[in-house]
Amino acid sequence: MQDIIFKHTVPLQLRFNDIDALGHVNNSVYFTFYDLGKARYFEEIKQNPINWNKAELVIANIHADFLSPVFMHEKIAVQTATISIGNKSLKVAQRIINTETGETKATCETILVGFDSATFSTQQISEAWREGISRYEGRSF
Amino acid sequence: MQDIIFKHTVPLQLRFNDIDALGHVNNSVYFTFYDLGKARYFEEIKQNPINWNKAELVIANIHADFLSPVFMHEKIAVQTATISIGNKSLKVAQRIINTETGETKATCETILVGFDSATFSTQQISEAWREGISRYEGRSF
Amino acid sequence: MQDIIFKHTVPLQLRFNDIDALGHVNNSVYFTFYDLGKARYFEEIKQNPINWNKAELVIANIHADFLSPVFMHEKIAVQTATISIGNKSLKVAQRIINTETGETKATCETILVGFDSATFSTQQISEAWREGISRYEGRSF
Amino acid sequence: MQDIIFKHTVPLQLRFNDIDALGHVNNSVYFTFYDLGKARYFEEIKQNPINWNKAELVIANIHADFLSPVFMHEKIAVQTATISIGNKSLKVAQRIINTETGETKATCETILVGFDSATFSTQQISEAWREGISRYEGRSF
Repeated sequence: MQDIIFKHTVPLQLRFNDIDALGHVNNSVYFTFYDLGKARYFEEIKQNPINWNKAELVIANIHADFLSPVFMHEKIAVQTATISIGNKSLKVAQRIINTETGETKATCETILVGFDSATFSTQQISEAWREGISRYEGRSF
Repeated sequence: MQDIIFKHTVPLQLRFNDIDALGHVNNSVYFTFYDLGKARYFEEIKQNPINWNKAELVIANIHADFLSPVFMHEKIAVQTATISIGNKSLKVAQRIINTETGETKATCETILVGFDSATFSTQQISEAWREGISRYEGRSF
Repeated sequence: MQDIIFKHTVPLQLRFNDIDALGHVNNSVYFTFYDLGKARYFEEIKQNPINWNKAELVIANIHADFLSPVFMHEKIAVQTATISIGNKSLKVAQRIINTETGETKATCETILVGFDSATFSTQQISEAWREGISRYEGRSF
Repeated sequence: MQDIIFKHTVPLQLRFNDIDALGHVNNSVYFTFYDLGKARYFEEIKQNPINWNKAELVIANIHADFLSPVFMHEKIAVQTATISIGNKSLKVAQRIINTETGETKATCETILVGFDSATFSTQQISEAWREGISRYEGRSF
């Protein structure tokens, strides 16, 4: 994940009960951070003046690596970037970093699938998404 | 709360991250237990063959006492009973008990208000609720 | 709660799964906000150069009012102030506000009890806490 | 994952705020279920009369597939099995099933690494774990 350029960063606010009995942020809490990162990332991309049809994305797959624990008073952030767009899916890379040391705490790749909630079936990634993401990331997908 | 008869009990399944850094169930998790208890309680009451209009109840007020901590492997349950019904609100009592020792771990009183989500305003507690609860609790409200 | 002066404010970061099926922040999530507010408040007070013995505080009682729902993209914060200190307990007032409109969304009073985790029994609120809080709040308790 | 035999099943209790604004169980909640499944699975294995040294396991990697959403009143369970044991790590397979229809809702593979919390470094999977798991799964690892 070293060669990915992350343009999108969301500082994270830890809550007291994010910390589990082992004294560090519970594994399952990381996924709420990744969720938050993705939500903000796609909201930002959707701000572009593009005609968005109802282009829903649902999570199909998550691949997460836990490199080093996060403790209560660490300053952390989640970073998000799109790394590829296929016909019916796109892949997003994320990482949790300590913003003071730059250390990468955890990484995650998520495959999201285009989904039509009316027909409850998969659908193509729309041109609007493709354009919006290309514009945001500064390279063509 | 000694004189309340609880007819409704839901055994609770603890999750690993319910336990916080202090080694016992985090205070804020109790409210997810009370939520679960209330949801199941009202579902059970609604099973009675009564004509339910859209009679929504929203939480206006919670008063909670924490008596003794809950640890990871305790067997606990949440108990729920209605204790009074007014014109536009009703009051529910709940407690968390250790089902092996009978110890009361925590108690809670919640005031719920009749609410019409269409007009976004309070409304009377419907006759259907009053009847259903009276039938379930075995006394007239 | 109108006449309380809140000097301590923590802006809150909402997470996607704070929102429940009803479309607004779930009631039980408010208590994680109050927890966060209290944790930060007491941390700030403890920064004063006072000789802190192990002076633990545990939550004995919470009284919470829900005034108006919080939606996904609202800017909110939790505010915290001590309102009284007794012999073995102290009372903290808190509220959730919309920082853009100033609207109070919810209020909470918590009674915390001095606790000695070594002997597992209640203890007096130490002079250190009393002094630290008085200094922070700018009035004597 | 079709050919894995799952001997270990934990029925799951859904909480009201597991359901997110989309009306189904939030993605990040699945990982609390997988956590619970793993915790119970390893507790059961440790009941065998084996001399356990401090043999801690930490999560290094999670690979999760989301096949179909879970709704509020579904009866679901998490199933867990060890699928391989290496020198310093072991791999666990899990799935979330609807216990009424048998439908697989989601699957997950987790790599856990032997860890010595005293020296904060990885360590071999002990013979005790290997034996305990082999005995439980009924095949030699």
